[in-house]
Amino acid sequence: MGNERVFAGIGGIVLLAVGISIGVLIGWYSGPDRVNTSMENALSEEESEIQQRLLDLIDNTKIDENLRFLTSEPHVAGRPQQYVLAEWVRDKFTEYGFDSSEIVTYNVLLSYPSEVDGEESVVQHLVYNDTEDGYQVEYESQTSEPALDETGKDKDVLPPFNAYSANGIVEGELVYANYARVEDFFALEDLGISVQDKIVIARYGKIYRGDKGKFAAQFGAKGLILFSDPADYTVLGQPVYPDGLYLPPTGSQRGSCLDGSGDPLTPGYPAVESAYRYPENGSTYLGLPTIPIHPIPSVNAKYFLSLMEGDEVIEEWRGGIEGLTYKYGPGFAAPSNESLVRMRISTSNQRTDAWNVIGTIRGSVEPDRYVILGNHRDAWAFGAIDPSSGTAAMMEVARAFGVLLKEGWRPRRTVMFGSWGAEEYGLIGSNEWVEEFSKNLDNRAVAYLNIDIAVSGTYTPDFGSTPNLYNTIRAATKLVPDPNPDEFENGAVTTVYDRWSLRDSGEDEPGIHDLGSGSDYAPFLQVVGVSAVDYTFVHDKATIPISPYPMYHSVYETYELVKNFYDPDFYYHQASSRLFAEMLRDLADSKIIPLNCAVYADRIGDFFTALKEGETGQKMVNDGDLSFDFMEDAVENLKVKADAFENYIANTLDKSDILAVREVNDRLMNFERSFIDPLGLPGRPTIRHVVFAPSSRDSYSSDKFAGIIDTMFDIDNNTDPEKWGKVEQQLAAVTYALASAAHSLELNMA
Amino acid sequence: MGNERVFAGIGGIVLLAVGISIGVLIGWYSGPDRVNTSMENALSEEESEIQQRLLDLIDNTKIDENLRFLTSEPHVAGRPQQYVLAEWVRDKFTEYGFDSSEIVTYNVLLSYPSEVDGEESVVQHLVYNDTEDGYQVEYESQTSEPALDETGKDKDVLPPFNAYSANGIVEGELVYANYARVEDFFALEDLGISVQDKIVIARYGKIYRGDKGKFAAQFGAKGLILFSDPADYTVLGQPVYPDGLYLPPTGSQRGSCLDGSGDPLTPGYPAVESAYRYPENGSTYLGLPTIPIHPIPSVNAKYFLSLMEGDEVIEEWRGGIEGLTYKYGPGFAAPSNESLVRMRISTSNQRTDAWNVIGTIRGSVEPDRYVILGNHRDAWAFGAIDPSSGTAAMMEVARAFGVLLKEGWRPRRTVMFGSWGAEEYGLIGSNEWVEEFSKNLDNRAVAYLNIDIAVSGTYTPDFGSTPNLYNTIRAATKLVPDPNPDEFENGAVTTVYDRWSLRDSGEDEPGIHDLGSGSDYAPFLQVVGVSAVDYTFVHDKATIPISPYPMYHSVYETYELVKNFYDPDFYYHQASSRLFAEMLRDLADSKIIPLNCAVYADRIGDFFTALKEGETGQKMVNDGDLSFDFMEDAVENLKVKADAFENYIANTLDKSDILAVREVNDRLMNFERSFIDPLGLPGRPTIRHVVFAPSSRDSYSSDKFAGIIDTMFDIDNNTDPEKWGKVEQQLAAVTYALASAAHSLELNMA
Repeated sequence: MGNERVFAGIGGIVLLAVGISIGVLIGWYSGPDRVNTSMENALSEEESEIQQRLLDLIDNTKIDENLRFLTSEPHVAGRPQQYVLAEWVRDKFTEYGFDSSEIVTYNVLLSYPSEVDGEESVVQHLVYNDTEDGYQVEYESQTSEPALDETGKDKDVLPPFNAYSANGIVEGELVYANYARVEDFFALEDLGISVQDKIVIARYGKIYRGDKGKFAAQFGAKGLILFSDPADYTVLGQPVYPDGLYLPPTGSQRGSCLDGSGDPLTPGYPAVESAYRYPENGSTYLGLPTIPIHPIPSVNAKYFLSLMEGDEVIEEWRGGIEGLTYKYGPGFAAPSNESLVRMRISTSNQRTDAWNVIGTIRGSVEPDRYVILGNHRDAWAFGAIDPSSGTAAMMEVARAFGVLLKEGWRPRRTVMFGSWGAEEYGLIGSNEWVEEFSKNLDNRAVAYLNIDIAVSGTYTPDFGSTPNLYNTIRAATKLVPDPNPDEFENGAVTTVYDRWSLRDSGEDEPGIHDLGSGSDYAPFLQVVGVSAVDYTFVHDKATIPISPYPMYHSVYETYELVKNFYDPDFYYHQASSRLFAEMLRDLADSKIIPLNCAVYADRIGDFFTALKEGETGQKMVNDGDLSFDFMEDAVENLKVKADAFENYIANTLDKSDILAVREVNDRLMNFERSFIDPLGLPGRPTIRHVVFAPSSRDSYSSDKFAGIIDTMFDIDNNTDPEKWGKVEQQLAAVTYALASAAHSLELNMA
Repeated sequence: MGNERVFAGIGGIVLLAVGISIGVLIGWYSGPDRVNTSMENALSEEESEIQQRLLDLIDNTKIDENLRFLTSEPHVAGRPQQYVLAEWVRDKFTEYGFDSSEIVTYNVLLSYPSEVDGEESVVQHLVYNDTEDGYQVEYESQTSEPALDETGKDKDVLPPFNAYSANGIVEGELVYANYARVEDFFALEDLGISVQDKIVIARYGKIYRGDKGKFAAQFGAKGLILFSDPADYTVLGQPVYPDGLYLPPTGSQRGSCLDGSGDPLTPGYPAVESAYRYPENGSTYLGLPTIPIHPIPSVNAKYFLSLMEGDEVIEEWRGGIEGLTYKYGPGFAAPSNESLVRMRISTSNQRTDAWNVIGTIRGSVEPDRYVILGNHRDAWAFGAIDPSSGTAAMMEVARAFGVLLKEGWRPRRTVMFGSWGAEEYGLIGSNEWVEEFSKNLDNRAVAYLNIDIAVSGTYTPDFGSTPNLYNTIRAATKLVPDPNPDEFENGAVTTVYDRWSLRDSGEDEPGIHDLGSGSDYAPFLQVVGVSAVDYTFVHDKATIPISPYPMYHSVYETYELVKNFYDPDFYYHQASSRLFAEMLRDLADSKIIPLNCAVYADRIGDFFTALKEGETGQKMVNDGDLSFDFMEDAVENLKVKADAFENYIANTLDKSDILAVREVNDRLMNFERSFIDPLGLPGRPTIRHVVFAPSSRDSYSSDKFAGIIDTMFDIDNNTDPEKWGKVEQQLAAVTYALASAAHSLELNMA
C-alpha cells in the first residue's frame, strides 16, 4: 500500500501543535439495543454450506505459490513486468470461470528516476576548494540499495526515488525538520529557524510523505531529503535483513509525493484517450511537488546530519542513528560558506499506461448490484508485502469463487474483482476506473472491499471501514479460525475475532479505525460514496512498534522476507483471504444487504460529540460565535431515523416481497451517497465525503467533518476576513448532508 | 411562468452576431425502425378503463372555479395571500385523499418595490433651471398601472418593478439598446456608441430580462430602463385591454432580474433554517444585479425616446410606438447638460418565507419511485394566465387522481404534486426543494412534469422536454380530444395531436423544443438530472406573433381576460389537464417506464451534427485545431447501445421477471443522470447538465453542449491564453458524459 496509515489511525494524529483536530476515536459498537442486520440474514442450510465451503476452499499453499510468482521480478507501475502480471491476473480470472475478465488501460502521468540525461539522483556534500568550479564532491548518497542476498541481484530494480519530485539541482544549507509535519515546521518557526531557501532533511514516518513535501514547499524550502531513521524502522538489537525483518542501514523507502489522488493531468475525469489533459507545467491544482524530494538510507543521513550546526534538538525530535547528535541546523558546522548540500535529482514525469484488470461474476438475482473487491498490483520493487501479499490472497479468493461457480453456485449480486495499476503513484488505476464508471457505480455499487497488504504482521487484523460495515466485519472474523491457535492451547482463542478482542480487551468490541486515504478504497468513498472496508494483518505494536512495517517500499521486501520472517506456512494469508471471501459472500449473497445505517448514525454521533466538546468545537462556539444546535438536531434525528429503519427491517419488512426488499436494499446502498457533496470540500473539488476525508495535513489519516477542520485550521493560520463565514458554511454543509441521510431513511416519505 | 421562452426555442435564438450558437433544431422522431417503449406498455383492459376514466374525470367547469378563486387577489411570493393559497392547495390535496399533504417553507431572499423610505420608484426627466438644486422634474413615469376595469380596483397590487434591482438614484444620458441582448451591445460598440456610465433604455422581449440587466452592467451602464414596446405586445389595429387581449399603453411587465436560479443567499444548498447564507452585500456569485433596473409602460417610454439625440436606428431596432423615430442616443436632443434622466429606485431585497405545498399519493408497487407534477403558485399580480391557469389545471388533475384513489385504484409508482412558491423570483421554491431532497430525487425520481402556464393561447400545445419523453408526450396528445373540434367538422382534426401535427405539417412529427430555464423544471434537470416536460397551450403565431402573450406579468392578467378573450368554456384548460393526467398516469403506472433512451441518443446525434457542421464546430476545427473524432465515436456508440437496449426491452426482457423489469426501469430512470457533471459547467457550478443548459446569453433558451458554446464564446470575447484548452476541456467533458450514458445501458456489463 502507498501508505503508513495502518497504525496512524489508531495511534492518533491529533495535531496538538495546531489544536484543531477532532480526537480520533476507535470505532466500536456497543449499544445493546441495536439490531444487527447481519444477524437478520439468517442463513438457510444451503447457504451455510456455501459459507463453510468457501472458507474451506481457501488454500494456504496456493497463496504461497501466487506470492512466489508475483514477486519473481520487480513490477513497478507502467513497466513491462506489470503488464505481464496484468495478463496473468486476467487469464486466471478467465480460467476460474468468471463471466468476464479484461485489462482496462489508462494513459496517465507517472514518474521514474534517472530519466534526465541518464544521470542518477544523488545528494552530495560539496566542499569549497581550489578546483575550477570552486567546489568538489566530498561525499554522495548511494544511488541504489545494495543486494544483500540472491533475490535482489541482477534484477531490474529502480533506485530509490520519490515519484513526481521536481528535477534539477538545488544547493544550500540543511535544516532538520523531524517528520516534516506542519507542526514540526511551526516548531522551527517558534525557534526562529527559517527553512526559507534551505534544504530540509526530515525523517520518514507519521504522515504521508507527499504532505511532507507540500509543507516543506509551503514553508519556503527549496528541496527535501527524506531518510529512514532507525528509530522508526528498526528495533535496537534486532537483526536486520537478510538476518531479520528490520530495515538495514542501506535500505531506503520509495514512494510518491503526489498531493491528491488519481492521474494528475485529468482531475475529476478518467484518463481515457478522449480526455482533456492539463499541461504538465500548468496549475498547482495538479498536486505535483514544486521542489526536488529524494529519499536516502540512514547510512547516508548519518553522514549529513553529523556535520550539522545549531542546537541539539529536543528529545521528541531525536532519532535512532547511533553516535549522532541531532541538531536543527541551519547549515554545517564547518564554515558554512565552504560546505553545502547539493540535490541533483533526475526523477522525471512520463505519460505511461496503467493497467487495471476487472473480473466479473454476474449475479444470479440482482446482476445490477455490484460488490467489488480490489487490490493493487504495482509495487515499488518486488513488493512481497505491498501489495503482492494482497494480490496473492485476492487471487485465492477468486479461485475459490471460481470453484463454487463451477459447482453451480452463483451469488445473488454481481461480484467484481479489481486488480489496480499505479496505486503507488496516487491510487491512480482505481481512481481512473471509478471516474470512468462513476455513474454506474453511483447507481449500482453496494460496497468496496480493499485488500492492499494482506499480511504485514502476524498478530491481528487491523480494519478500517465505514461504520455501516462494522457488523459485517465482526461477523466474518467470528467465522475465520485464528491463524495461530497453538499459542492458546486452552482454547481461549479460536477465531480471528477472539484474538482481535484480546488486543482491545479493554473495550466492548475490538476497534475499527476510520478511512482516510492511502489505498484504493479512497476513490470509491470520495468520488461516489461507496461504503468500504480496508484491512491488513499487522504485528503486535508491543513487539514491533513500527508503522506499517520495517521494510516498507525497500528493495528488501522480498518473498524470502515473507517466507522466512513473517508467514512461512501462509496461514495469515489464508485467514486474510477467508475474511475477504466471507465478507464478499455476505454482501453479495445476503437477501438484506448487511450495511447497518444505525451503527453508522451512532458513530456519527460519537464524532459529533468529539467535535463539539473538543478544543475545535469550543473555539467555534467561543471565538466564532457559532452554534452546534442545528448539527446536533440533525445528528439526533439521523439516529432516530436510522434506528426506526433498522427496526423496520427487523420487525416489519415482508422479506418475501421482492420489491420491498429491493427498496430497503437500495436505501441501505444509497445511505453512504448522502454524505457526498457534489461541490466538494474546500479547495478539494474531488474530495466529496463530508463525514470521512483524508486529512489535509496527512492524507493517510481520516478527518471527521474535514470541511470544518480545514476551515478552522485556516482560522489559526491566515487572516481571511471571511474566515468564520467559511467555517459556518462547512458546518451548514455537514448539517445538510446529515439531514439528507435522514431523509433517505424516512419511512413515511413515500 | 417567469419567462418568454415559449416561442423563443422555436423561433431560434441563433446569435448570429457572435456566431457561436448551435442552430436550434426542432425535435422530432422519424426513424422508422425505432422501438416505441410507450407502445410496448400494452394496456390491459382494466388499465385502459383507468386511462379513459381519468380523462373523463377532468371537468372544465371545475377548472373555471379554481381559476376564479385563485385570481381573486394578487398573490405575490412571500405575501399573505400566497400563504392563503398554499393552505388552500394543501387542504385540497387532503380532501382529495392524498396520503400526505404539507406546506414546506424556505426562508429566502425576495425583493419588493417601494421598500426604501416608502418612496415609489420612478424614472424622471430632469431639466436644468434656476431652482436651488439646479434641476427640476419635468416628467416622471407612472408608479402604478391604472385599473381599467373593476378587477384591479382597490386590490393590494404591487407596482411594476424588477425584482432584485439595485436601489438608489442614478442620473445620466440615455442610450437605446434595442432588446439589450449581447449582440445589441456589440452592435452599439461597432457604431462607436458607448453605454459606459449611461442609462440604457431597452425593450422587453427575445431574451430573459435578467440577462439584459447582466449585459447592461457588463458593458458599463449605470442603469437599465425596460419598456414594453407595442411592436412586441400588440397587433396594430387590435383592441387592447379591457376591450381585447393586447397590452394597453399603460401596461407594464414585472419580473425578476436574478442571474441564476434558487435562493441567491444559499446557492447549492436548501434555504432551511440551518443553512449558511452569504452576506447580501458579498460576492457577485449571488447573481444579484449591480445596477438599478426598472420597467415602464410604452406611454412613458414614448416620452423619453422622443427626446433622444443621435442617428435613427436601423430597421430591426425600430419598435412600434406610433409617431416616434427611434434613435440610438446618447442623450437628449435638448442641450444635454441641461436635460437628463434620473432613475430613483426603491426596490429592495428582503428575507421572506416561500411556501411550497407537496402532496403525495403513495405508489402501490414501487413507492420508492417518484413521478412528480409541479406548478408554481406565486404571481406578479392576479396571475390569471401565469401561473394560475396552470394551478387551476393541476388542481383538477389532483382531484381526478383523488377520485380514482377513492374508487380503489392506486398508481404503481408514487405520484407527487408540487405547488411551488417564489418561482417568479428565480424558480426559488422548486430549487430549494430539489436541493433539500436532491439525494432522494437522485435515487428515486423518474420524471418531472411541469405546468406553469396552462393556457396562454388557444391553438396547440407547445412542448419542451428531454428527448426520452417525446414518445410519451405524443402518445398523450393522441388520446386527448382537440379542445376546438368545431373548426374541423370534416373530422380531420380530432385530437390534440392532429392539430399539433397540422401546425408543423411540413415535418414527420410535430416539434418539441429543448429545455433551457425559465420555469420549475430547470432545477430538476440541472441539479439532479431528472427527465422533464414543460408545456403550455399557445396561440397561433400567424395570428398573434407575441411571445409569450401580450399581457404577460401585467396587472391586466385577470380572470376576466381569460374568460372573455381566451377560453370562455375552459376547454383548453381541460385539454391541458388531460394531457398532464395521462402523461402522469403513463409514467407512474406503466410497467416499463416510458422514457425512451434511443430517441434521446438520436437527438443527441442531431445536436452533434449541428455543432460539428455549424460555424462553431468549423471554427473549433480550423482555428482551434480541435477534433470531433472522439465525440463522434461517443455519439455513435451511444446510439448503438441505446438501440440495443430498447430492442432488449422490446424483444428479450421477460416482463414477468420483477427484478429484471426493475433493473431496466432503473437504467431508464438513471439515463438522464449520466449527463450531470458534478463539477458543473464553466463558471456555473450548480448548472450541471452537459447536454441541455440555459444559455449564458439567454436563460430562457436552451444551449446544447453549453460548456462548449460558452468557452467558444470566450474565444471571441477575451484573450485568455488558455482559451482553446478550456474548449478542449469541455469537449472532453461532454464526450465523457456521453460515454457514461452508453456505459449505463451496456447490456453485457453485469
